[in-house]
Amino acid sequence: MPVITVEEMNVFLNEHFPQGEKFGVLTGMGDAWAEMRLPVDDEHLRPGGTVSGPSMMALADVCMYAALLGQIGLVPLAVTTNLNINFMNKPESGRDLVARCNLMKVGKRLAVGEVWIRSEGCEEIVAHTTLTYSIPVER
Amino acid sequence: MPVITVEEMNVFLNEHFPQGEKFGVLTGMGDAWAEMRLPVDDEHLRPGGTVSGPSMMALADVCMYAALLGQIGLVPLAVTTNLNINFMNKPESGRDLVARCNLMKVGKRLAVGEVWIRSEGCEEIVAHTTLTYSIPVER
Amino acid sequence: MPVITVEEMNVFLNEHFPQGEKFGVLTGMGDAWAEMRLPVDDEHLRPGGTVSGPSMMALADVCMYAALLGQIGLVPLAVTTNLNINFMNKPESGRDLVARCNLMKVGKRLAVGEVWIRSEGCEEIVAHTTLTYSIPVER
Amino acid sequence: MPVITVEEMNVFLNEHFPQGEKFGVLTGMGDAWAEMRLPVDDEHLRPGGTVSGPSMMALADVCMYAALLGQIGLVPLAVTTNLNINFMNKPESGRDLVARCNLMKVGKRLAVGEVWIRSEGCEEIVAHTTLTYSIPVER
Repeated sequence: MPVITVEEMNVFLNEHFPQGEKFGVLTGMGDAWAEMRLPVDDEHLRPGGTVSGPSMMALADVCMYAALLGQIGLVPLAVTTNLNINFMNKPESGRDLVARCNLMKVGKRLAVGEVWIRSEGCEEIVAHTTLTYSIPVER
Repeated sequence: MPVITVEEMNVFLNEHFPQGEKFGVLTGMGDAWAEMRLPVDDEHLRPGGTVSGPSMMALADVCMYAALLGQIGLVPLAVTTNLNINFMNKPESGRDLVARCNLMKVGKRLAVGEVWIRSEGCEEIVAHTTLTYSIPVER
Repeated sequence: MPVITVEEMNVFLNEHFPQGEKFGVLTGMGDAWAEMRLPVDDEHLRPGGTVSGPSMMALADVCMYAALLGQIGLVPLAVTTNLNINFMNKPESGRDLVARCNLMKVGKRLAVGEVWIRSEGCEEIVAHTTLTYSIPVER
Repeated sequence: MPVITVEEMNVFLNEHFPQGEKFGVLTGMGDAWAEMRLPVDDEHLRPGGTVSGPSMMALADVCMYAALLGQIGLVPLAVTTNLNINFMNKPESGRDLVARCNLMKVGKRLAVGEVWIRSEGCEEIVAHTTLTYSIPVER
């Protein structure tokens, strides 16, 4: 179980991503998982009022990063090597997006996780992502 | 060969992505290809001075969108259904990123392309993306 | 809930894949899911006694196909358009592989699912796959 | 430039894949590339006479393996960690499949390449694959 609190992780994420909370806010984390929320505003919108794909990719990427660092500690040099995303359904307009990451593997060199993105309070999956992070050896 | 000029496409992209040029600028397009440039500034940077993954995903996504619309016309409802990206090398600091999209298939319902991202003037590939767009039937 | 039984689906799969059971055997199916088992023999092995990657891709592909046809009926022209697989852990030697597919979206034109592969009786994930199938319009 | 000949690599591949030539035959290799041919027979066919997806995934996987080992030497423990494939067009019936792998990165720990599959003598792309191999440290 991680000894880093949600508050501490949010501070760390904001320091390391100068764009700050536009990537979303960590709302929970635990053993091999993390959850984030993206308050949707104009900056994320595309034509038709839908959230842009890159906003969701960023949300998934940071959510996996938080889940991983919750497991291995605050190793800022972990980097994404692969991201695969399927966009499935339009988000509900006017609702925040919520992301849930489950880590599937945390090895010495590679970590793999998946992230489901939904509109808050909805069952339908908006997007699904699998990610691989490379973990630096010298930690 | 597309009858839309690079200037017209840039106007279209800026209208349809309210975040405008932070996704990059179209620099060329032709038969089944498009090229963009991302002037790197603080907004795209991550710890260590590297460009953030989501900035590159956005660049690849818009580059494919431009290449596709150059082929099928300005169909604003084409949407990304799948994006797969491999991050391979750190970009050169202080250099713009350039993206090149080649379309591999433009079918009635689906289009598939790949995008190579490099630092300007460098041979090394920074990231490689494959994307699928779904094309609306009623066009 | 599908009205096709597991036995009927196995007959259908064997008729449509002349290689027959070497892709595995359907062991269960229900609302938006299917499960298969791959009895591991020499044909699937790679150096070191591990199961070959393509054997697992085939298992995942057929498992998604079974889950999908359980939802939409026996539409033989549904075809895979995208498959993404992450290999995470070596299978346990001497154990069958089991695959579980959950469908995430079944639209008019595209269906998306994920498949987890494990060694029988083990919690550790051997491989994870996401797949997209294109569904023919004229059904 | 690799010092391993095409003939030597074919012997190596056949020894390490007991299923042997059903995965295809190496026809050429050089600096960061390899080419293979898959003589299509009944074993690879699906309903409608098309080549099965898993046969193409296997072809792409072995083609990347050959290209990589041509660069780093006969390191049998290199393993696929990620494979992403887009199926775009049906192969031409009665023609062999040809695969071309270009390596995009050969790092200390990870190698990334892409593989285009076509029917022999045809320009149209049947399938496109990107693959990541993990390279063992202790080589």
